[in-house]
Amino acid sequence: MTELDVAQLQRRLADFAASRAWEPYHTPKNLAAALSVEASELLEIFQWLTPEESARVMEDPDSGFRVTDEVADVLAYLLQFCEVLGIDVLAALAAKIDRNEARFPAPDSAKVTQRHSSG
Amino acid sequence: MTELDVAQLQRRLADFAASRAWEPYHTPKNLAAALSVEASELLEIFQWLTPEESARVMEDPDSGFRVTDEVADVLAYLLQFCEVLGIDVLAALAAKIDRNEARFPAPDSAKVTQRHSSG
Amino acid sequence: MTELDVAQLQRRLADFAASRAWEPYHTPKNLAAALSVEASELLEIFQWLTPEESARVMEDPDSGFRVTDEVADVLAYLLQFCEVLGIDVLAALAAKIDRNEARFPAPDSAKVTQRHSSG
Amino acid sequence: MTELDVAQLQRRLADFAASRAWEPYHTPKNLAAALSVEASELLEIFQWLTPEESARVMEDPDSGFRVTDEVADVLAYLLQFCEVLGIDVLAALAAKIDRNEARFPAPDSAKVTQRHSSG
Repeated sequence: MTELDVAQLQRRLADFAASRAWEPYHTPKNLAAALSVEASELLEIFQWLTPEESARVMEDPDSGFRVTDEVADVLAYLLQFCEVLGIDVLAALAAKIDRNEARFPAPDSAKVTQRHSSG
Repeated sequence: MTELDVAQLQRRLADFAASRAWEPYHTPKNLAAALSVEASELLEIFQWLTPEESARVMEDPDSGFRVTDEVADVLAYLLQFCEVLGIDVLAALAAKIDRNEARFPAPDSAKVTQRHSSG
Repeated sequence: MTELDVAQLQRRLADFAASRAWEPYHTPKNLAAALSVEASELLEIFQWLTPEESARVMEDPDSGFRVTDEVADVLAYLLQFCEVLGIDVLAALAAKIDRNEARFPAPDSAKVTQRHSSG
Repeated sequence: MTELDVAQLQRRLADFAASRAWEPYHTPKNLAAALSVEASELLEIFQWLTPEESARVMEDPDSGFRVTDEVADVLAYLLQFCEVLGIDVLAALAAKIDRNEARFPAPDSAKVTQRHSSG
């Protein structure tokens, strides 16, 4: 995979929407709602599972396919959202990791389990 | 940006979590919940906006920063989720677009606005 | 309807879960996830609608039924969540409205449209 | 508490919104988005907790208050959503329980743990 791929996927998604005349529906607000709905559909697969069961979800072909399919939907709406607002999502994440490394310095010893930050 | 970037971001996120001993928290179930929570934080920015206001959200530096920050959080949890389950998220999306192109053929004329599919 | 109804609905939901031996699944965490998933299923109905279309959603019997059904699911998980944690949801809301009336005093003139608080 | 309470809470919420001129914001679509955002804020409290920790969340006064506060927000937006669309939420839930009792008959013996239905 190359970066061409992220740009290429974004281009394929834009062409897909344009050829179906879906652009009027793709306001940032609607795409943010759709992204959140897809993320919930992913969560739905896990809602009644124990932590241990959740770790084995790819072992069953049906649930593995469903998980992969929902992950694709989440990324699809995230990329379309970023496309309509002109956001470079990879640069946004790189900058966020930089900020988090400054905000939450790694402990000297990583041996002690820390509470997870909420951010 | 190169594909190295997606792999690189995934590696930085994994190192970040490992050095803080957060791995026990990062079950697929917890990461799916966190992804859904971050997607809702993005939606929160838009919840009271008109469609027109939502299209101008990047014009204000504060809301533009907030949107970019939430987008980064969504991608961060999506990549971490895929990492723990061994899912190639770019391949998953490429396969999904292939399936959608077969399921929802583009109309001969794109001039007529179609209802958006729910998927 | 009487308050008996809220308590009665909560009792029916508890009996329903108990007779199917679902109680082990009904941790507060799982019920919070299920509540959030159902709220997203309600949102899904509206995600591509204009504000005007969203106001007419009950006029179509099918979408009206779907909305009513999702609203019931949201309340069902909210009441079950409150039941397992011993929270009186009506008292919680009454107390919250009291706090909001103190936090966001009504303007002398309500004629000017105010920005919506985010809370 | 009496049924007057649900109607009364709904009335107080409507007055609160009217006196702040928030009604134009309270489209069904916006209220569905806000409901989903609040449900996610409730989930956020639980996202890194084990099932066991989640069962003890009310023991800590701070997290107990936060949970109660988010529960109130969820009910507030659910009641406002139902108000603007003319839905009787208690009747909707009673009808849904009736349907579920028909769809998922209780087993003769409740001793065997069943898989949870996804609905």
